[in-house]
Amino acid sequence: MDVDILLNALGNPTRREILQTLAEKPCCVTELSNRLNIGRKAIIEHLSMLKSLGIIDYKIKRTKRGRPRKYYYIKNDLILEIVINNMQFLTNILKYENFEKLAKECPFITDLYKEFNIITKTKNIEECEKFMKKLNNKLNQINMARALVQYMIKTLKCMMKDVKN
Amino acid sequence: MDVDILLNALGNPTRREILQTLAEKPCCVTELSNRLNIGRKAIIEHLSMLKSLGIIDYKIKRTKRGRPRKYYYIKNDLILEIVINNMQFLTNILKYENFEKLAKECPFITDLYKEFNIITKTKNIEECEKFMKKLNNKLNQINMARALVQYMIKTLKCMMKDVKN
Repeated sequence: MDVDILLNALGNPTRREILQTLAEKPCCVTELSNRLNIGRKAIIEHLSMLKSLGIIDYKIKRTKRGRPRKYYYIKNDLILEIVINNMQFLTNILKYENFEKLAKECPFITDLYKEFNIITKTKNIEECEKFMKKLNNKLNQINMARALVQYMIKTLKCMMKDVKN
Repeated sequence: MDVDILLNALGNPTRREILQTLAEKPCCVTELSNRLNIGRKAIIEHLSMLKSLGIIDYKIKRTKRGRPRKYYYIKNDLILEIVINNMQFLTNILKYENFEKLAKECPFITDLYKEFNIITKTKNIEECEKFMKKLNNKLNQINMARALVQYMIKTLKCMMKDVKN
């Protein structure tokens, strides 16, 4: 997936609203049109663009009455990252498939991943909610670490530029 | 800064090109217009929009001949993150100021930050380039950890929805 095409797509507020809605649950055109108060024709155009990018897809479901409907859903796991500072303008799509391998390569996340594997087996809702909090804290810590690394990269780039001039 | 307004701004390819160019060095309207092969009027409009969002600013520099010029530069350190999967559509702006504090709160980055502080004092280019590689490796690791945490959050949300239904 091309990051420029993705940014063009996400630059449109209606397309963002559509994705927001589909992240809650798969929807058909009529549902999206009613919930977002936008005409069917526009919805269909946005959906077709998002589908052509591979972000969403649809499954056909039969309804009790009337003809089968297309239910759109978000197909891909994507993280898009944009770093903006006076030394860098980076756009980056992160896409991973093999999470077992990731867990091994990130020592500071290995324990959490073990705990995750237990919770997905026991399916205890209370434990799961507690663990969600842990995950959100870890995410926060990861985001801080990332900001700090970006800051160091920027500062050193700036320094090297100065020294070389 | 509002994430929706920022995404609208970044949805335009010319504005992304402008930011890409300013990340290399501060530029005046004429330079941007020549480098991107886009009319001055359009450049001025995009710059004014980016400035109103607080992403860029300008400094007035005197030139040897002719009148002083406005040199635009990227003003803010921003990380914008968009997470897309079948349980979430998250848009998030990360902005930090106090990097000393961040270093203390992220145990897995503390040592790197100490090394960084030494390098910014000694200003040895070779050491700096070696350290840059370390930073990029760490960034890679951080991105993997983040993808893994997002995957766990998504999976658990999905699981909780199923169990509750």
